[in-house]
Amino acid sequence: MRLTPESELCKRIARLQAAMGKLGFDAVLLAQSADLFYFTGTIQSGVLYVPAAGDPIYFVRKDASRARAESALAHVVPMGSLRELPGVLHSMGYAAPSRLGFEYDVLPVAVFDRYRKVFATAESLDASSLVRRVRMIKSTYEIDLMRKAAQQADSVYRHAREILRSGKTDIELAAELEHHVRLQGHPGIVRMRSFNGEMLFAHVFSGADAACPAYLDTPLGGVGPHPSFGQGASWQRIQAHQPVVIDMGSFVDGYLVDQTRILSIGELPAHLLTAYHDMLRVQTLMQRIVVPGVTWAEVYARCHALAVELGYADNFMGAKGAQASFIGHGLGIEIDELPIIAPGFTEDVFEPEMTFAFEPKAVFAGEGVVGIENTYVLHSNGLEQLTFSDEALGVVMPT
Amino acid sequence: MRLTPESELCKRIARLQAAMGKLGFDAVLLAQSADLFYFTGTIQSGVLYVPAAGDPIYFVRKDASRARAESALAHVVPMGSLRELPGVLHSMGYAAPSRLGFEYDVLPVAVFDRYRKVFATAESLDASSLVRRVRMIKSTYEIDLMRKAAQQADSVYRHAREILRSGKTDIELAAELEHHVRLQGHPGIVRMRSFNGEMLFAHVFSGADAACPAYLDTPLGGVGPHPSFGQGASWQRIQAHQPVVIDMGSFVDGYLVDQTRILSIGELPAHLLTAYHDMLRVQTLMQRIVVPGVTWAEVYARCHALAVELGYADNFMGAKGAQASFIGHGLGIEIDELPIIAPGFTEDVFEPEMTFAFEPKAVFAGEGVVGIENTYVLHSNGLEQLTFSDEALGVVMPT
Repeated sequence: MRLTPESELCKRIARLQAAMGKLGFDAVLLAQSADLFYFTGTIQSGVLYVPAAGDPIYFVRKDASRARAESALAHVVPMGSLRELPGVLHSMGYAAPSRLGFEYDVLPVAVFDRYRKVFATAESLDASSLVRRVRMIKSTYEIDLMRKAAQQADSVYRHAREILRSGKTDIELAAELEHHVRLQGHPGIVRMRSFNGEMLFAHVFSGADAACPAYLDTPLGGVGPHPSFGQGASWQRIQAHQPVVIDMGSFVDGYLVDQTRILSIGELPAHLLTAYHDMLRVQTLMQRIVVPGVTWAEVYARCHALAVELGYADNFMGAKGAQASFIGHGLGIEIDELPIIAPGFTEDVFEPEMTFAFEPKAVFAGEGVVGIENTYVLHSNGLEQLTFSDEALGVVMPT
Repeated sequence: MRLTPESELCKRIARLQAAMGKLGFDAVLLAQSADLFYFTGTIQSGVLYVPAAGDPIYFVRKDASRARAESALAHVVPMGSLRELPGVLHSMGYAAPSRLGFEYDVLPVAVFDRYRKVFATAESLDASSLVRRVRMIKSTYEIDLMRKAAQQADSVYRHAREILRSGKTDIELAAELEHHVRLQGHPGIVRMRSFNGEMLFAHVFSGADAACPAYLDTPLGGVGPHPSFGQGASWQRIQAHQPVVIDMGSFVDGYLVDQTRILSIGELPAHLLTAYHDMLRVQTLMQRIVVPGVTWAEVYARCHALAVELGYADNFMGAKGAQASFIGHGLGIEIDELPIIAPGFTEDVFEPEMTFAFEPKAVFAGEGVVGIENTYVLHSNGLEQLTFSDEALGVVMPT
């Protein structure tokens, strides 16, 4: 069990505090599991109080002994009730905050109201963007974990090639791949920050089911086992000459990478094969144009324009009427971090040590999906591709 | 694929509207997936607008065609932007709401702020309790699905008995059971309403790891694969004469039941065996005293008192310092519905057609956990136990 090193936590807190200083926050109070993990190394229930200067305090409701064992932070304080916080902070020499930040993007209204009452004299501010932008730039430590997750993603893909059989259902294939990575320590859930964001490890589906739009803002969704959970694999039987999507969020020690590969039993129809190679062309364009300083919106616009030029206006990133609003997304602890490679982000630029997945996909309603997804890290001297499975379309011979 | 029948949705909406009338809500706007599934039969992204009288309107961002196919509601309206809502409602003859309810317990602050701006003239109210109390009383249709989920829970337990071997790791056992129910259509996630509520299908762990406290407000938590996800199974090897916990949230067509059974390879030490039988005594007491009209707090107090009398003050529902605040919880679409069998609920009474899990457990730090959990429905003429696996401690012979 690898714990997040103290030096790593200190650097993260320092970067948060520097950003807080610029924006005039006196303190932020963080409570969401992904943010807690990033800044404390664990997710024990409680809140992390980070002043603009000085040591952060991790107030833990449950379980404090485990928080002490798992977090390298110096100050882990057991908490009975939230109401204790101002008194404890005062006794530790901290000034009462005038401008206090909260995670508006994930904190439920009722929870926020409780926190706000406890700090009744402070002005409440939205710290979501601040926190997400600190987390957007990855350290060497984080990138190293993502490189390990890329190895897991490759092992999933290779296993999928081995076990793919015609007549198997999508859910049988998905369940076998899930079992495969579960034994490697995958927790089974891919963390998604957005509201209603539920996601399994795997989006594995074939033929027409892969092209079924779903409630998530994703290019693919899947039918899922039931309308109560309408995403992912269903009981469709895998047939020859249909694309089988292996889209897997792999996980090592809290960090994700995202990789998609397409398998087929026997050759795909010519137009799907062409579309696959056209999606590779979109990927190649992205690889060429993503450099520090280019805006997220420009990368989107140029890649989208190429997809349209190649004839996929009504297929790119979803079937007509259900097209996703992006081609790529940041990731690390959550699958939907910054950057977002989408229109609108005309002021946001790529910076060194951002990690992101890029996933040009062409969706043919009633037929299936082809495309590719890889996870990258941008360095000051160029783009490094973290996921590395074979990019030739994975044609398996019928048995 | 079974869709929620129109008659079922109509009755649910009518019960919500009756409760809204009593509390003076003009309308509620629902957006969370579990609530959407309950009132629409699907979870397509959007909002459900329910006026105090008249037909509800399901505004769907993605995917409207799928919402029409999966929901029996009459009015499914594609939505481009939230800002359209007041205009569309006006054009359909609905009066602008003065008192508008939202799901304060789950709606993120940032999402709520967007909704509130769209309905700027309305007073915002917390509809969480209203919605949860409507969902608390189950229909025959819902109870029937939970009976089917109980069959799945039994198949998990019987499979666990078959595959339990000493030397296997907890995570190997968990992954095999997860695979087993995934093939039966389990989505892989157990929905939890509370903030930061992430839960896998299975809490399967043995010996000391089962007794490890975790961040969730649950009697057991588990070590998990990593501090970034500190719950559930870890790589502990299962040994003879240690309790192995099989705690599984089974799922059929959107509905959960919760069941825990204890397995062991060879006999357990005498004090754990005694504790197991004492937990059965707590269960028997609950079965005797839960009748319509008794308060949730009284059931908690009497069962807790018996556990203390039997000598488990420092072991009941967690090891000392990490004891959960409840002995039972409502469930259905989510694992943490109402009722809550806990102190404080001195005004809340059991009512017919409530479903709940009751889980007396004794935790011995460094040793393991024994106890039981079953899911029940209370009828006007008595308690029906839905989960039914053998309650004799599951002793497997060493091979």
